[in-house]
Amino acid sequence: MLNLDMIYHASFVLKDVVRKTNLVPSPAINPECNVYLKPENLQLTGSFKVRGSGYMISQLSEEEKARGVIACSAGNHAQGVALAATKYGIKSLICLPDGAPISKVEATKGYGADVCLVKGVYDDAYKKALELRDECGYTFVHPFDDERVIAGQGTIGLEILSDLDNIDAVVVPIGGGGLIAGVACAIKKLKPKCKVYGVQAQGAPSMLNSIANKRIERLDSVSTIADGIAVKEPGANTFELVNKYVDGIVSVTEDEICSAILALIEQHKMIAEGAGAVSVAAVMFNKIPVKGKNVVCVVSGGNIDVTILSRVIKRGLYKTGRSCELCIELMDKPGQLQKVAEIIAANGGNVISVSHERGSETEDINGCFLRLILETRNYEHIAEINKALTDAGLRLHNERGN
Amino acid sequence: MLNLDMIYHASFVLKDVVRKTNLVPSPAINPECNVYLKPENLQLTGSFKVRGSGYMISQLSEEEKARGVIACSAGNHAQGVALAATKYGIKSLICLPDGAPISKVEATKGYGADVCLVKGVYDDAYKKALELRDECGYTFVHPFDDERVIAGQGTIGLEILSDLDNIDAVVVPIGGGGLIAGVACAIKKLKPKCKVYGVQAQGAPSMLNSIANKRIERLDSVSTIADGIAVKEPGANTFELVNKYVDGIVSVTEDEICSAILALIEQHKMIAEGAGAVSVAAVMFNKIPVKGKNVVCVVSGGNIDVTILSRVIKRGLYKTGRSCELCIELMDKPGQLQKVAEIIAANGGNVISVSHERGSETEDINGCFLRLILETRNYEHIAEINKALTDAGLRLHNERGN
Repeated sequence: MLNLDMIYHASFVLKDVVRKTNLVPSPAINPECNVYLKPENLQLTGSFKVRGSGYMISQLSEEEKARGVIACSAGNHAQGVALAATKYGIKSLICLPDGAPISKVEATKGYGADVCLVKGVYDDAYKKALELRDECGYTFVHPFDDERVIAGQGTIGLEILSDLDNIDAVVVPIGGGGLIAGVACAIKKLKPKCKVYGVQAQGAPSMLNSIANKRIERLDSVSTIADGIAVKEPGANTFELVNKYVDGIVSVTEDEICSAILALIEQHKMIAEGAGAVSVAAVMFNKIPVKGKNVVCVVSGGNIDVTILSRVIKRGLYKTGRSCELCIELMDKPGQLQKVAEIIAANGGNVISVSHERGSETEDINGCFLRLILETRNYEHIAEINKALTDAGLRLHNERGN
Repeated sequence: MLNLDMIYHASFVLKDVVRKTNLVPSPAINPECNVYLKPENLQLTGSFKVRGSGYMISQLSEEEKARGVIACSAGNHAQGVALAATKYGIKSLICLPDGAPISKVEATKGYGADVCLVKGVYDDAYKKALELRDECGYTFVHPFDDERVIAGQGTIGLEILSDLDNIDAVVVPIGGGGLIAGVACAIKKLKPKCKVYGVQAQGAPSMLNSIANKRIERLDSVSTIADGIAVKEPGANTFELVNKYVDGIVSVTEDEICSAILALIEQHKMIAEGAGAVSVAAVMFNKIPVKGKNVVCVVSGGNIDVTILSRVIKRGLYKTGRSCELCIELMDKPGQLQKVAEIIAANGGNVISVSHERGSETEDINGCFLRLILETRNYEHIAEINKALTDAGLRLHNERGN
C-alpha cells in the first residue's frame, strides 16, 4: 500500500527529472478566500504526468529498463512517459489511436518515444499496447492505477506543504484518480487537518459516482472539454486511496471550466487545459467550503489544443458581453443594410460577420433576416445597440448575447 | 544623463515593489540558438511598466507625493502608474480616451487609480492630463521619456545579467524606447560585448526610421496588433540612448507577431501581448544574427485583449493548416449537400460553419456555392479532403487555407 516513504523517495529521485513549480498567489479567483495556484501546466511536458511515469520508470530493474516501456495515451501521459524514458536513457513506445491530433503525436515523438498509431479509438490502442507488451516484454506504464505512478504524483503534495505554512485546503482535478490519490496521501499523513477536495467535470463523474455508491462504477460515455480527465472508470488502487483520504468530490460544468480557463488567461497570462482548470472553476464558483481559508488549486496541465482554446475564448466572449449575435428583420428594399450599419457604427459596435438571408421564414413576405456578429464592450453596450436599433423601428430576433 | 548608478538604485528601491521574473529556457523558438525568455508578462500588472513608474514615483519629494500623480494611457502604463502609486500610498489619476476597452478601465481602477474618461482619442486624453496637471499640481508620469522611468525599466537588464553568465545578445521590443534605453544602458555598461537589438512592428517603425535617418521622425499613423508599441514618435532622451547603446533595430510583420504569440501559448502555456511577442518573433524568423548564441528575448507584457487573442489564434490556425475554408460549386439539385458532407466526414474533417448561397455568380445558371469552414489536422489533411472532393466530381473555388 502507498505510504509517505514512497512519496518522499519519489521526491528525492525526481529532483533532477522534473521542475519544481512555485505557488502563485491568485487573489482575484475568489475574493472570499486566499487562493494559490500550483502551476503544473508549467511542468516539463506541460503537465504533472511526468512525475508519476518518471518515478515508476526509475524503479524498474535493469532488465526491465533494457526491454523498454510501453504506454497507451493520446495525451499528457504519452508525453510524460516519453520524456521520463528519454531522461533515463530507455526506449519507449506509445500506442495512440490514429485519430489523435497530429500536434500530440509530434510532441510525443519530440520527447523521444516511438509512436504506434492504432486504427480505431482509445480502447483499440490500449488493447494493442497490452498485446505488444506480451509479445515484446515491454513494461506497461499505467496512466494512474500503479503505486509508483501515484507516489510520483504525490510529490506535488510535498512541494505544496513545503511552500505554504498555513494551508487549509487543496483542490485537485480527478480523472483516473492518480494525482489526487498521491497528493491526498502526502497531505493527510503530514497535515491531517488540511482538507483535500477532488473536482470532476459534470460530463465525466466516474470517481464522484463511484465514491457516492461505494463501489467502482463504469460510465457508458463521457463528454467534456476537459479531455484529460474524461475517464470512464477509476482504478482499484486510486478508488481505495480516494475513499480513505479525500474529504469530498464536486463537479463543475463546461461553462464553469471555460470561465476558469479565461480567468487564468486574463489574470495570470497562463494557459490551462480544461482538466487543469477544474480545480480553479470549483473555487471560483463556490463549489467548495473554503470561505476565509488558504486554498491551493492544483492546475494540473496546460496542453489544450489551440482549436479548443479558440472555442473556449469565443464562448467566454459571448458570456461576458464582449461579443454578440444580432438577428434583425429587414424589409427587402434598398438602404436597409446601410441603415443598420450606420446605427451600429454610431454606437461603437465592431462588425465581425454579416449574413443576409432572403426568403427565410419571416412574418412578412417582403422581409428578410440580417444576422450580425459584433464585438462589443459589455452587456450595457449590447443593450445600447439593441435600443438604438429598436428606436429606429427595426425588429430584433436575437438568440444569444443579449 | 542616465547612468548605471541610477539603475542600481532603482533596482534597490524596487526590491519590494516589483516581482523578479525568472528566465525561462525556450529551446524550440529557434533551434539554431539558445533562447531564454525574460517573462515580464508575468510581472505585476502584466507588464514591465510598473518598474519605471515605480522608481519615478519613489523619487518624488514629499510635497509632490502629497499632490499625487497623473498619467495618460489606455494600456500598461496606466496600470503600472496606478499600482506603483498605491504601493507608495499616494493618489493617482489616469486620463483615458472614452473608447478605451472597459477591461483596461476596470483594471486601472482595480489597482487604485481614479480614472478620468476623456471624450476623443489618445491625444485628447493627453491634452486633458496636462491641463489637469497645471490646474491641480499633479506630477505627470511620462510613459517613457523620463530618466527615472528609463532607469526603472533598466533593472530588467541587471536581472538578466545576474541570471545568465554567457549571454551574447538581448532582444527588446521598442515603442517609445524607454524599455530598451534602460536595458541597453545597463547591459552595455556592464558587459559591452553583449549585443542589444530592438524590435518594432512593421506598422509602427518610428524608432527604426528615426535612427536610420539620424533624427527624430514622427509617423502620420501607426497600425499593428502590437498596440503597446504603436508609438508615433520616439522621445528625445530615448532616441539619444538608443542611438548610443543599441546595436540594431529590426521590424516584424503582423503574421510573424501572431505566430510568436501562438508559439508562446503552445510551447510555454504563456500569454504574451503583441508588443511583448515581437522580440520572440524576431528570433523565430531569423531577423537577428544570433545563430549559435545565447540570446534573451524580453517578453515585455501579456495584457492582450481576449478578443484580439481569439483573432490571433484563428489566424494561426489558418496559417498552420488546422482550419480551412472551402468554397464548392454545386449543382442546385437535391442531395448535393449530403454528398459533400459524406466526403468530408469520411476524411475526418470537422465542419465548423456552412453557408449555402444560391444565385451567386457561378458559371452555371443552375449552380450555387457552398462555403464551409473546417477544422483540419494540417495541410496534408486539407489536401486529402480537397482531392476526395475533386475526385467525386465537385469543383472547388478555394480562397484560403489550401
